[in-house]
Amino acid sequence: MSGSVFIVGLGPGSIDLLTPAASRALQAATDLVGYGPYIDRIPETLFSQCRHASGNRVEIDRAQHALTLAAEGRKVAVVSGGDPGVFAMAAAVFEAIEAGNPAWRDLDIRVEPGITAMLAAAAEVGAPLGADFCAISLSDNLKSWDTIERRLRAAAEGDFVISLYNPASRARPHQLGQAFELLRTIKSPETVVLFVRKAGTPEAGVIVSTLAEVDSALADMRTLVIIGAEATRLIPRTGLRPWIYTPRAEQEGAR
Amino acid sequence: MSGSVFIVGLGPGSIDLLTPAASRALQAATDLVGYGPYIDRIPETLFSQCRHASGNRVEIDRAQHALTLAAEGRKVAVVSGGDPGVFAMAAAVFEAIEAGNPAWRDLDIRVEPGITAMLAAAAEVGAPLGADFCAISLSDNLKSWDTIERRLRAAAEGDFVISLYNPASRARPHQLGQAFELLRTIKSPETVVLFVRKAGTPEAGVIVSTLAEVDSALADMRTLVIIGAEATRLIPRTGLRPWIYTPRAEQEGAR
Repeated sequence: MSGSVFIVGLGPGSIDLLTPAASRALQAATDLVGYGPYIDRIPETLFSQCRHASGNRVEIDRAQHALTLAAEGRKVAVVSGGDPGVFAMAAAVFEAIEAGNPAWRDLDIRVEPGITAMLAAAAEVGAPLGADFCAISLSDNLKSWDTIERRLRAAAEGDFVISLYNPASRARPHQLGQAFELLRTIKSPETVVLFVRKAGTPEAGVIVSTLAEVDSALADMRTLVIIGAEATRLIPRTGLRPWIYTPRAEQEGAR
Repeated sequence: MSGSVFIVGLGPGSIDLLTPAASRALQAATDLVGYGPYIDRIPETLFSQCRHASGNRVEIDRAQHALTLAAEGRKVAVVSGGDPGVFAMAAAVFEAIEAGNPAWRDLDIRVEPGITAMLAAAAEVGAPLGADFCAISLSDNLKSWDTIERRLRAAAEGDFVISLYNPASRARPHQLGQAFELLRTIKSPETVVLFVRKAGTPEAGVIVSTLAEVDSALADMRTLVIIGAEATRLIPRTGLRPWIYTPRAEQEGAR
């Protein structure tokens, strides 16, 4: 089969954070497939391919559509915000391949990595991921809340820096608050908590708080939440937001 | 003060994975500061700045040197492989700022994110990070082996996909084997284990194994190790390496 599916990471939003490899994969495509808002990010002046935009939560339909087009010989780019392998389209495409037409396994499939939200958010505030860290999606559309709580507990007990993707949506307004409640039973109340909204774009916004005082209602689907490790700390600056970083070394009594 | 320090992620190696923002930060710099092999990656034909290469394990000296140059009014780019915030130079620069000349806090400091090794490695093999995941550096230069074991145990108990950075070096040949031994006490022997060497470059190499059978001697400092979650699985292909991915949904008895 001559068709292909390139699963392309668009990064956080700004074209400045789109890699040349991803850009070239978009240029080479005959068809762009993706969630509407991500498709809309791709400037039509630069990329004039046939566009197939779809809604949220239809990842498998979208993946099957892309694979079907590729099996007809089209060169398809499936686009994701951030990195396609992190809570995005790559896993959905491979799920569709495994369950679908065996001939799809012979297609030219490639993943083009991108800057995931966690890296862009960290860059906005300093170096909060400077030591060991983890990433958890708070969405329970596809996994149970029990699993999410099990992972939050493990992450707290291992003293990982924790990045929370999909922290809140209209359908799930209370889960971030529940996550903070669980973490408060294990972690210090002074633990640094960061809300970074629209990281890696000119409209980026940051809230610096603590586990004791954080207001979970201030997060939405464009927010990436970072919860510090024990050693995560602030560097105060005059007239500016503090830098936040996690030292590489363990420090006794650093707080 | 008019000087600046931009802490720039070079990505996995190929210029194709260097973001336009990072490329522009290098262009704008008067001085490039970094570990020799990373400095050597930057084509002199494109970037002709004054180069200050240094050895490994002198991150704080290098950070102080960059900040000193910036305080003299220079525009310094501190370069890191991958993403500067992930086991790289950003944390070292903020450590130096916190402990150093208070005037350094007024410098224009920025972090330019990059594609970290874990994302490039995942893209080579499919979508192994498709569910919740963590990243642990196996280097005990700056933290105790006890802490590393505590985090490995927590990651296994939380059923995270685990990425291991710095899995082995000449000075630390046995730690990866010890990590696998610990993980075998908690995780299934059939757990997928991936060694991805030089991910995101034309010389990329992949070994697909299991926790029971993996040979830790095959890893070196250019290897990123990924240990699957319970649900991580293979899609066999005729005549080609299988795809490896972690489904987004929990699956009962999926193995």
